[in-house]
Amino acid sequence: MRILGIDPGYATIGFGAIDVAQGEYRLFQFGTINTPPDLPFERRLKMIYDDMSALLEAMHPNVISIEELFFGKNATTGIGVAHGRGVILLAAAEREIPIFEYKPMQVKQAVCGYGKATKHQVQDMTRRLLKMKAIARPDDAADAIAMALCHARSATSLLQRLNRE
Amino acid sequence: MRILGIDPGYATIGFGAIDVAQGEYRLFQFGTINTPPDLPFERRLKMIYDDMSALLEAMHPNVISIEELFFGKNATTGIGVAHGRGVILLAAAEREIPIFEYKPMQVKQAVCGYGKATKHQVQDMTRRLLKMKAIARPDDAADAIAMALCHARSATSLLQRLNRE
Repeated sequence: MRILGIDPGYATIGFGAIDVAQGEYRLFQFGTINTPPDLPFERRLKMIYDDMSALLEAMHPNVISIEELFFGKNATTGIGVAHGRGVILLAAAEREIPIFEYKPMQVKQAVCGYGKATKHQVQDMTRRLLKMKAIARPDDAADAIAMALCHARSATSLLQRLNRE
Repeated sequence: MRILGIDPGYATIGFGAIDVAQGEYRLFQFGTINTPPDLPFERRLKMIYDDMSALLEAMHPNVISIEELFFGKNATTGIGVAHGRGVILLAAAEREIPIFEYKPMQVKQAVCGYGKATKHQVQDMTRRLLKMKAIARPDDAADAIAMALCHARSATSLLQRLNRE
């Protein structure tokens, strides 16, 4: 099963795909989609949509794992992120790829086993679980890989739980 | 020139198109796009995108006038609205239709000449300016028509000002 993790945004969108088979994780690909700040906002949305569509066509993920948005102090940045996230979800819906959403605390819990782990702890555990030599760069890509791992480990726990019952 | 006004959302999206020629306004069409609450969110986004794309193909607007989002007290609803607005802007960008954004106060000012006009005053002035027998229903459609009028009157004022100089 291929899981595509996505760190949503409108300037930089992180993505990271992992393959899961027999309880083993393997990093497939990761990177970022970037949109230039001098472009009109709607053109940036089109760029995100086009690039994400191409990515989904090339990667054929079975599921998407994406961060759930919540608006804290920086609601203004959040408006832009939610616009970008909208066209990402659209690209997934057009291909009928199931979407799973996780809160940052759920990612920390699933990857590190501790809901208050630091960003660096999550990134380093992600690196170890995927046997990577270094933490992925930039942060957006590392966060996206952790999103994918979060779904893999949440789904695994669920299966293990079901098997025990 | 045909102006399509849009009141963005994800459950109900209002639209209202007016034609402007020689300083005269004429109501072309108005209505709403509605998405069922029991559908997964990403399917609702796809429905908005598909319906909006069909609307743009049928109406051929020269410009789009859409409400600018700002997040006040109800940021949680705002997240959904921003997702919906994202796929609406995408549909417009794919057709290279110019997009103009206005704040609620600008709409009130342009339609009623008074930035603190009530919702009813804006709706009634919209009705009078377009020689409609009754205020458009539902509110989302009436708000969208006012958005279109706002652009018409803002653009007109600009032209008048330029002609005077």
